[in-house]
Amino acid sequence: MPKLFSTRLHEGVCAKRSALIVGLDPRLELVPEEIRLEALRQHGNTLEAAAEAVLEFNKGIIDAVCDVVPAVKPQLAFYEQLGVPGIAAFKETVDYAKQQGLLVVADGKRNDIGSTAAGYADAYLGWTNLNAVEKTRAFAADALTVNAYLGSDGILPLVESAVNNETGVFVLVKTSNPSSSELQNLICSGKTIYEIMGGLVHSWSQAHIDEQGYSPVGAVVGATFPAEAERLRGVMPHSIFLVPGFGAQGGGPRDVVPCFNNDGLGAIVNSSRDVIFAYKKRGGDYKSAARAVALESSTAIYQALVEAGKRPW
Amino acid sequence: MPKLFSTRLHEGVCAKRSALIVGLDPRLELVPEEIRLEALRQHGNTLEAAAEAVLEFNKGIIDAVCDVVPAVKPQLAFYEQLGVPGIAAFKETVDYAKQQGLLVVADGKRNDIGSTAAGYADAYLGWTNLNAVEKTRAFAADALTVNAYLGSDGILPLVESAVNNETGVFVLVKTSNPSSSELQNLICSGKTIYEIMGGLVHSWSQAHIDEQGYSPVGAVVGATFPAEAERLRGVMPHSIFLVPGFGAQGGGPRDVVPCFNNDGLGAIVNSSRDVIFAYKKRGGDYKSAARAVALESSTAIYQALVEAGKRPW
Repeated sequence: MPKLFSTRLHEGVCAKRSALIVGLDPRLELVPEEIRLEALRQHGNTLEAAAEAVLEFNKGIIDAVCDVVPAVKPQLAFYEQLGVPGIAAFKETVDYAKQQGLLVVADGKRNDIGSTAAGYADAYLGWTNLNAVEKTRAFAADALTVNAYLGSDGILPLVESAVNNETGVFVLVKTSNPSSSELQNLICSGKTIYEIMGGLVHSWSQAHIDEQGYSPVGAVVGATFPAEAERLRGVMPHSIFLVPGFGAQGGGPRDVVPCFNNDGLGAIVNSSRDVIFAYKKRGGDYKSAARAVALESSTAIYQALVEAGKRPW
Repeated sequence: MPKLFSTRLHEGVCAKRSALIVGLDPRLELVPEEIRLEALRQHGNTLEAAAEAVLEFNKGIIDAVCDVVPAVKPQLAFYEQLGVPGIAAFKETVDYAKQQGLLVVADGKRNDIGSTAAGYADAYLGWTNLNAVEKTRAFAADALTVNAYLGSDGILPLVESAVNNETGVFVLVKTSNPSSSELQNLICSGKTIYEIMGGLVHSWSQAHIDEQGYSPVGAVVGATFPAEAERLRGVMPHSIFLVPGFGAQGGGPRDVVPCFNNDGLGAIVNSSRDVIFAYKKRGGDYKSAARAVALESSTAIYQALVEAGKRPW
């Protein structure tokens, strides 16, 4: 029986007892030196070496956190920056994470219209046709972040693919960065743009709701704006929020509580730098440091939910 | 002496006497059968074969149009759909187009914030650092389409890279698709969102203007909404418009005239399917058909500009 992505994601949250997910944003200069030097010995000073270092680093992080978080979120910019070898490292990172029992949210904020949007859907959420009968997965992610500035034409092909392939999308609604208000907080007929965008997300999600009341059409809602998150929780009751801005960007455990429904579900909170480069602050092995911070952050979010009376899993 | 991208692009327009650019959106099923079969013989039924077919097809199109248009615009979705081999074909397409004297606009509609946006800038517009002293180009494009839903945080790192590397960005303002109005035509304090976005683009462009009065911070403005384009031309006098929606999507030569300034500059018009798959309608060799349609479309745009009294190059 096929499952919607929302069901698969919440199963992961409950099984790992964690709403925290780990962002795989491997900035080369922060990857431990021994990993970089080993790649350099093998490949010289090339993009291949950089990509190999990133992949090795990611595998270590995945091994360290795979039993304590439900998902990882590789940020595509950091792989595209490394050219074709970087994209190969992205693909292998996705495949390795899935082997280790993690879901993968590809953070690409993709957007286009019609058959081009369908191309992105094939690339990350579904299947690429090789001919009339054979198909393959280009990148076997479980979900993709998307940008809906172009309207429904750009989103519906992705939603269709997600529903058909047990995958999901997270639509940018209210982002965590300081200048997000320039456009997103403008007011049209008494509503902010982010509320209007939330309303669109709600309309796209309604036809596809799982038994727990959630949809594979999720929303990106930053941890740095708790009051906005509270309002958006009401606008999009069926959407799972992907919450950036926790930790390094300033959002704390209490700030993310409004992103969750009263059932303690409906949100996943991303932490990137604070987890994967924890060894820079704490010293010691990068894997142990990453695991320790992932566990601490996950527990802090759990406790904040309990304190707020949102029964967690 | 470094040049701004706007200068380089207009030099191309004047040299080729064409404001038309060709979109490289290679849908596998439309690539001529002999090319697909040859790739199949070499690589079997794989993404490698699909990517090889796409690259061969692209090289033929580039050969056919390189002396009659200033630029090509590969749409990244169609390459990402073919996985890692597809990205390799994208890179080789970019490099081949540049060897043949074309500028390359990577149509990726990328968007993110801060150092992540800088990652995209490195990937497409600038250089990736391999270490403290060495750097390389991941994908050597001349410009990138970008989405500014996240505000200035997401755009300024790209603008900085563009200015430093003789490259450019085209920010989505008013897109050519039917549902673009859902968000872009909402009215806030008497202005549409697309006008507000146009105002932001204008503010980002003002610090970087070349001798002819143009900036490397361009705008995407669809051919399908001429009245909106007219208004936006006034809002962003220094930005070059990248105009989709010509041909297959319904925009004709007269519809694109408002996108140009009175000097006959300030816009490039994209045509994808109509040019690259012209052989499907006209029969014969796909290269000859593509060249013929590129020349006809280019001439039709030139004549429409002359009729409107916009002195072209």
